Amino acid sequence: MVTGYLRTGEEIYEESFRIIRAETNLARFPADVSRAVVRMVHAAGATDIADDVAFTPNVVAAANAALRAGAPILCDSSMVATGIIVSRLPADNEVVCHIKDPALAEVAAAKGITKTMAAVDLWLPRLEGAVVAVGNAPTALFRLLELVGETGVKPAAVIGIPVGFVGAAESKEALAANPYGLDYLVVRGRRGGSAVTVAAVNAIASTDELTNTSRQG
Amino acid sequence: MVTGYLRTGEEIYEESFRIIRAETNLARFPADVSRAVVRMVHAAGATDIADDVAFTPNVVAAANAALRAGAPILCDSSMVATGIIVSRLPADNEVVCHIKDPALAEVAAAKGITKTMAAVDLWLPRLEGAVVAVGNAPTALFRLLELVGETGVKPAAVIGIPVGFVGAAESKEALAANPYGLDYLVVRGRRGGSAVTVAAVNAIASTDELTNTSRQG
Repeated sequence: MVTGYLRTGEEIYEESFRIIRAETNLARFPADVSRAVVRMVHAAGATDIADDVAFTPNVVAAANAALRAGAPILCDSSMVATGIIVSRLPADNEVVCHIKDPALAEVAAAKGITKTMAAVDLWLPRLEGAVVAVGNAPTALFRLLELVGETGVKPAAVIGIPVGFVGAAESKEALAANPYGLDYLVVRGRRGGSAVTVAAVNAIASTDELTNTSRQG
Repeated sequence: MVTGYLRTGEEIYEESFRIIRAETNLARFPADVSRAVVRMVHAAGATDIADDVAFTPNVVAAANAALRAGAPILCDSSMVATGIIVSRLPADNEVVCHIKDPALAEVAAAKGITKTMAAVDLWLPRLEGAVVAVGNAPTALFRLLELVGETGVKPAAVIGIPVGFVGAAESKEALAANPYGLDYLVVRGRRGGSAVTVAAVNAIASTDELTNTSRQG
C-alpha cells in the first residue's frame, strides 16, 4: 500500500495552484490572463514557461466573449480537440478539428503542403470570429496568418502554442507580430504543445479555477 | 504571404530530429530507448528533459514485444488515448481509457478517491502483460502500484510520465523504486504530460522514426 498522497481532485488542484502561485512570476499579467497562465504552468509542470508567455491584454476577454456568443473552437490536432472540456463551454460551442479527415493526405500532397496546413484551409467558412487553438504544428499558425492576410477573415482570438524545433518559435513570433490586429496568446520559443494549449482554452472557457479540467483531458 | 518555412511533414521531421540529436545528451541510453527519448524531447520542445529520463534497459523491448503479442495499451487520459496512432500498432491492439465513463464520478465519490484512480481499478481484467501509459495523473501511477502489490498482476511495461506539482515527482520515484520488477520509463520531477507520453508510446510501437506520429495526435 502506497500511503500519504492526496487522493481527491479538489485537494490536488488547490495545492497545485497554491504552489504555482507561490513559485511563478505572475505580476505582469492582467487577472484574467494570469488565470490562464496558472493553468498553462500546471499543464507544463514548469513555472518558467510563464516567463515566455506573450499576449495581447484583451485576448482572454475576447476569446471568452466569442465563446459566449457561440463561436466555434478551431483546433489543429485531435489531442487539443479531445482535451477541451465540452461541458465547460458556455454556448454548446462546436469543437472543430479536420486533421483525421481521410481526404487530407491527398489534398496536402496535391498542394505540396502539410496535412495540418490543408486542415487549416478547411477552417475558412467558420473562421470569422472563431477561437483558434493551435497546440501542435507551426505550419498551422503560418497557414492561418496567410489565410487571414489573403481573405481578411479574422478570428476573435488565437491561442497559438505549437511545440518543436523547426518553425515553432518562428511561427509564434509571426503571430505576435501579426499586422492584422489579432488578439493572441503564445509561449515564445520551442516549448508548448497540446496540453498547454488545452489548459489555456479550458481556463478561458470558465471562470471556476478549481473545476476539474485539463486533468480529465 | 509568410515565406521561407519548411512545408512538408517529412522535411520538418528530418530537420527536427537532426537538431535534437545534435543538442541532446543521449549517450547513456541504449539505441531503442534513445529513439523514444528523441521523440519525447520533440514533444516537450526541451532537450533537457532527456536528463530526467529514468528507465529499465529492457523497457522498450518489453513493451514492443507485448504489443506484437497483442497486448492492450491502458491509458489514464483521453488525450493519451487519442494521441496513440492506431495504424502504427503492430497487432490491432486495443487502446483502453475509462476516464470518460459516466459511472466513474459516483465510484470515485463512494470510495473517496479520484476518478483517475477508479478508472485504474477498471484496468485489472486486462492488466496482465499490458502496456500501461500514464501521462496525466500521479494518482493513476500510485493506484497502479497498489493494484500490482495487492493482486500480483503485472503489466509488461509502464510508461509513467504524469505532470504536475502535487505527487507527480513522487509517483514517478515510486514507480522507479517499485519492488515488483516492473519495466518502466519515466521523466523524473514535475515535467511530463500526455504529449510526451504519447511520443514514447508511438516510438515504441514502430521502428520507423520518420513516420508521422505525435504531430498527428
